[in-house]
Amino acid sequence: MAARDLPQSKGRLAIIAGAGALPHHVAEAARRQGEDPFIVALSREADADWTGFDHSILGIGDFAAISGTFQAKGVDRVVLSGAVRRRPEWRDIRPTLKTLAKVPSILRTLMSGGDDAVLRMVIELIEASGARVIGAQEVVPNLLADTGPIGAHAPTAEDRRDIEAAIAAANALGALDVGQGAVAVGGRVVALEGAEGTDAMLARVAALKVDGRISARRRGVLVKLCKPQQDERADLPSIGPSTVAGAAAAGLAGIAVEAGRALVLERSRVAEAADKEGLFILGVERDGRGGQG
Amino acid sequence: MAARDLPQSKGRLAIIAGAGALPHHVAEAARRQGEDPFIVALSREADADWTGFDHSILGIGDFAAISGTFQAKGVDRVVLSGAVRRRPEWRDIRPTLKTLAKVPSILRTLMSGGDDAVLRMVIELIEASGARVIGAQEVVPNLLADTGPIGAHAPTAEDRRDIEAAIAAANALGALDVGQGAVAVGGRVVALEGAEGTDAMLARVAALKVDGRISARRRGVLVKLCKPQQDERADLPSIGPSTVAGAAAAGLAGIAVEAGRALVLERSRVAEAADKEGLFILGVERDGRGGQG
Repeated sequence: MAARDLPQSKGRLAIIAGAGALPHHVAEAARRQGEDPFIVALSREADADWTGFDHSILGIGDFAAISGTFQAKGVDRVVLSGAVRRRPEWRDIRPTLKTLAKVPSILRTLMSGGDDAVLRMVIELIEASGARVIGAQEVVPNLLADTGPIGAHAPTAEDRRDIEAAIAAANALGALDVGQGAVAVGGRVVALEGAEGTDAMLARVAALKVDGRISARRRGVLVKLCKPQQDERADLPSIGPSTVAGAAAAGLAGIAVEAGRALVLERSRVAEAADKEGLFILGVERDGRGGQG
Repeated sequence: MAARDLPQSKGRLAIIAGAGALPHHVAEAARRQGEDPFIVALSREADADWTGFDHSILGIGDFAAISGTFQAKGVDRVVLSGAVRRRPEWRDIRPTLKTLAKVPSILRTLMSGGDDAVLRMVIELIEASGARVIGAQEVVPNLLADTGPIGAHAPTAEDRRDIEAAIAAANALGALDVGQGAVAVGGRVVALEGAEGTDAMLARVAALKVDGRISARRRGVLVKLCKPQQDERADLPSIGPSTVAGAAAAGLAGIAVEAGRALVLERSRVAEAADKEGLFILGVERDGRGGQG
């Protein structure tokens, strides 16, 4: 979305930072590209140390403060980065009267929306205040997974069947705006990601193997796909070194992510960890093709 | 499936008993109907006390012993009842050469099947040995959920939206032969049942509420549907008093199950527990209709 426009931009880049390692990574990469990012660290979410960056700590629902700050800082582009684990509550949302008038869908969304609806609402609210929302991958293009392997290992024929089974499940979930991740073992989908997140799902798979409810003799794979209807300016599915560690602890053979629509954080550390644990990491198409690694 | 034939049957009823309370419940109900059930308690699965019933403890893969026992006991009808948590491994399966010749799909199934494929294989193997596999509901018809409420409480309009969201997810999962259960809170599906089972999924929802990752101010519902392609002689989805306790602990408003294709164990205790906890229990159609309670 207009990554080509960035060099001409006169305004400042802001990063609304949720939980996890991604926001700090994006902020550092943006700096290396000559940006001076201003950080809105979300209270109760952001867990990185923002010392050394110009930043404010604000609640996700406090749009009045956020848009005021953006205007004061001359922000014209905003990246939403990191997980927002706690869905905002009615009482947390404090839009200005002006933004509320511009965004009549806000009430309906808060009442009924899935994750995507909430994200679309946040994007609408920010854009109503005058800044443009862009994807993290537009600031740091090399975050996106490519088609093919990362690291030295490649999936076996059995792993490819697991990838196919997990892709089918992740596609079905994504179409319902439920989740992005699935684990298949021995050709069978054994775990689906809901609100608990990928790390918790991997811990569950590890426990099911210990318990004998999943064959510990078969390895299995984690697949993460972008939801088909997801706004790519919202946080794309991502993996990082901790995902590799979780997959290894669950005895998986590897991880497949959607090429072009998923982020790989700290790619060299991911490759190193995967090589050490004997896991493959593969960028695939959502129809299961690609990645002849 | 030929429930009408039962009174004419001359042979004995066998129950292959997996984990949980259902098999014992079925065995007692069968006795009340004049049967003298013979129990095959699956080793590492069955956890009921079978004192007072003619029974053997056998491994799920030991078809040679199972079919030999059936012949010795004059068994002509078999009910599969209770959960089989541990998927049989290659090394556990010991069919006779005779049954193996009759069931060429066994190898393919073991390599790749989902739960349903494994169940179909078990049914084929039993029927190859001469007995007929019937559903628990054919022996104890009042186990099946009806359309409409059980107990005193009824879903609100908000609960009905959660039921619809969870039905959509459970249908998508079931079509993939992945699972039967889903939990929706505030119109959003937050948990999907994989190999961990309903009780573990409900415990996860409770933890996510404590953690603030699901709104604790919204209640939500559990939905369990039969997989669309499921052989109804295999174990149908079921709920019992412990499901009500788990749903209450997760702060849910109620439970919806598929009318005519799900079992309600100990219905009076379920109703009593639901009334006490303020939960609704509702039999619904898989298209979300029915159950105007």
